[in-house]
Amino acid sequence: MKFELKSTDGLSKARAGLITTGHGKIETPIFMPVGTVASVKGVHQRELKEDINPDIILGNTYHLYLRPKTDILEKAGGLHKFMNWDRNILTDSGGYQVYSLSANRKIKEEGVKFKSHIDGSYHFFTPENVMEIQRLIGADIMMAFDECTPYPCDYNYAKRSMHMTHRWLDRCVQHFNKVPPKYGYDQALFPIVQGSTYKDLRIQSAEYIAGVGAEGNAIGGLSVGEPAEEMYAMTELVCGILPQDKPRYLMGVGTPINILENIALGVDMFDCVMPTRNARNGMLFTAHGVINIKNKKWEDDFSPIDEMGITYVDTYYTKAYLRHLFAANEYLGKQIASIHNLGFYLWLVREARKHILAGDFSEWKNKMVKQMDNRL
Amino acid sequence: MKFELKSTDGLSKARAGLITTGHGKIETPIFMPVGTVASVKGVHQRELKEDINPDIILGNTYHLYLRPKTDILEKAGGLHKFMNWDRNILTDSGGYQVYSLSANRKIKEEGVKFKSHIDGSYHFFTPENVMEIQRLIGADIMMAFDECTPYPCDYNYAKRSMHMTHRWLDRCVQHFNKVPPKYGYDQALFPIVQGSTYKDLRIQSAEYIAGVGAEGNAIGGLSVGEPAEEMYAMTELVCGILPQDKPRYLMGVGTPINILENIALGVDMFDCVMPTRNARNGMLFTAHGVINIKNKKWEDDFSPIDEMGITYVDTYYTKAYLRHLFAANEYLGKQIASIHNLGFYLWLVREARKHILAGDFSEWKNKMVKQMDNRL
Ligand SMILES: [Zn+2]
Ligand SMILES: [Zn+2]
Repeated sequence: MKFELKSTDGLSKARAGLITTGHGKIETPIFMPVGTVASVKGVHQRELKEDINPDIILGNTYHLYLRPKTDILEKAGGLHKFMNWDRNILTDSGGYQVYSLSANRKIKEEGVKFKSHIDGSYHFFTPENVMEIQRLIGADIMMAFDECTPYPCDYNYAKRSMHMTHRWLDRCVQHFNKVPPKYGYDQALFPIVQGSTYKDLRIQSAEYIAGVGAEGNAIGGLSVGEPAEEMYAMTELVCGILPQDKPRYLMGVGTPINILENIALGVDMFDCVMPTRNARNGMLFTAHGVINIKNKKWEDDFSPIDEMGITYVDTYYTKAYLRHLFAANEYLGKQIASIHNLGFYLWLVREARKHILAGDFSEWKNKMVKQMDNRL
Repeated sequence: MKFELKSTDGLSKARAGLITTGHGKIETPIFMPVGTVASVKGVHQRELKEDINPDIILGNTYHLYLRPKTDILEKAGGLHKFMNWDRNILTDSGGYQVYSLSANRKIKEEGVKFKSHIDGSYHFFTPENVMEIQRLIGADIMMAFDECTPYPCDYNYAKRSMHMTHRWLDRCVQHFNKVPPKYGYDQALFPIVQGSTYKDLRIQSAEYIAGVGAEGNAIGGLSVGEPAEEMYAMTELVCGILPQDKPRYLMGVGTPINILENIALGVDMFDCVMPTRNARNGMLFTAHGVINIKNKKWEDDFSPIDEMGITYVDTYYTKAYLRHLFAANEYLGKQIASIHNLGFYLWLVREARKHILAGDFSEWKNKMVKQMDNRL
């Protein structure tokens, strides 16, 4: 994996970069659509590629491990071939999903025992086997196995957990260095900064992670319910410590405004279920604010879904038609809204990149943040 | 509406024809995908047009009347504009759905009172207002309001019902002749032959319907649970009476084998929810038989969904991947299977047309019927 820093904004910490991997380029800042279980929900791979056009998508290790299971993915020659996606894939470590099982998991130094949400069977994730699963999945970028603490989190718990995450990282790195990439192309490992919303812990963790010298670094444990200001404060702090010459990935973030603010703080990579999950609930993100397409006010509004026409659906269908599909509970509504929202998210990060390269990012960002903070 | 008979098979009654309407050509035999409530479930209009490519789709008057409601469709300038579909649309009369409400409808000479399955509100369909609703929907082909009898049906009930359907037809025709087409292009009215599975009633009804001199004629009340042989017997009988120089539409039929057999008996037009409904249950139709993609045997079968590659999904995805999507309850599985099945149905009727024109339809039909009667 190669990372080139192409430009840095003058008035903020925003960066435009270029990652190159065995599956091609990733222009940063980038938003990665979430393809939970080998599918971006309701979106065909052809639409993902031709209409939404991200350089990279995300897969969830927890879900893929349970279904279709690692052996099927290995037989298929990896997730890329299994789902017919020839661009980049990043996999999370499964940690986040496992911790969400709350009553059905037990965390120990060795690893995490958990109960499958599908059939109740017991499984054990360790730093070593999670590396191995991601290796067999064939991820271009694999994430270290960490504990993602909830918000709010007791200081002592956050501190203990952070140190365990660091010890787990050492085990991940050790396993990672021992085994070659599975399918002939490079697979990178990104460690994750934790430390909840405590400044001293975040500093300590960022320094620890920076010291590993990985090909890229991630910030975890944010966007878990804390106020946006706390998230921004932590991102700023951590980005100040993580190396300049490696990509920085803020996990699980966020709204379009969150993304622009975090780009301004020096983040290069994002992922979030929000564009697809909210789409399925009839919420559309646009450059001029948010639309609840289920609202009766759109019933006879025959204007295009979004006059900007970022993806073809925006001008192919009207608001009244999309509203009808939601009212009639037709799945096509969710499909259209998902394409629209993902298209908008990708437009947003591409536009951010253009403005960073053009040198007017901050001005544009401030205008966009104001403009998007609106209900249509 | 214009209908040209291009060729008739030598060894059967199969016909290749060409319908021309205000929305272009319809090459027959044709299968019409069902777009219940202004959407072919799970399929984008772009996929319908570019991948599946039917000259005509069907809309359900009952569903469209309840949602989005006739006034919205009228404000939109008709269903074509509302859903952005610029080819032909045929609407059923709503009768079939209304009768399916069984306990929640009451049939009288004047019309049918029924209770909405959505909000329990009461509505009244008459031959006149059903014509008017279809006119406002903007259907290129409107269906007469009929009573579709169940199977089995008592002879006396079938006979009384048939005569009422005939009287209703007269009222439909009267209303139809009184009002001009709504949106500037022609709208045709097709009457419907009823008579359950009773030969004498079918003959009587077919003669009555033939006497109306409509631009096309339909056969209703079949594919409602009767054995295939009875269906074929009725189709053959009725096709022998309906005019040669008008298209014949067999409503609600059926399996790929049913379609080929009925083409051989002189039917030109078909519709059925089977390709899409069965797709959503994981059943794929192919030229070599039926696939239950949920079956564990496909778990590690990385061959294309269908090597014939009729639509792009067939070779874009593997059986193992599609099986996984169904196992994981990912909606993309239903989307892929729906495109596959509709693509196959349209291929089948187009192929039938080619063989009729080439003069070897019967031979091909017999081979296909044998070949498709198989579980893979
Ligand atoms: Zn530590
Ligand atoms: Zn009669």
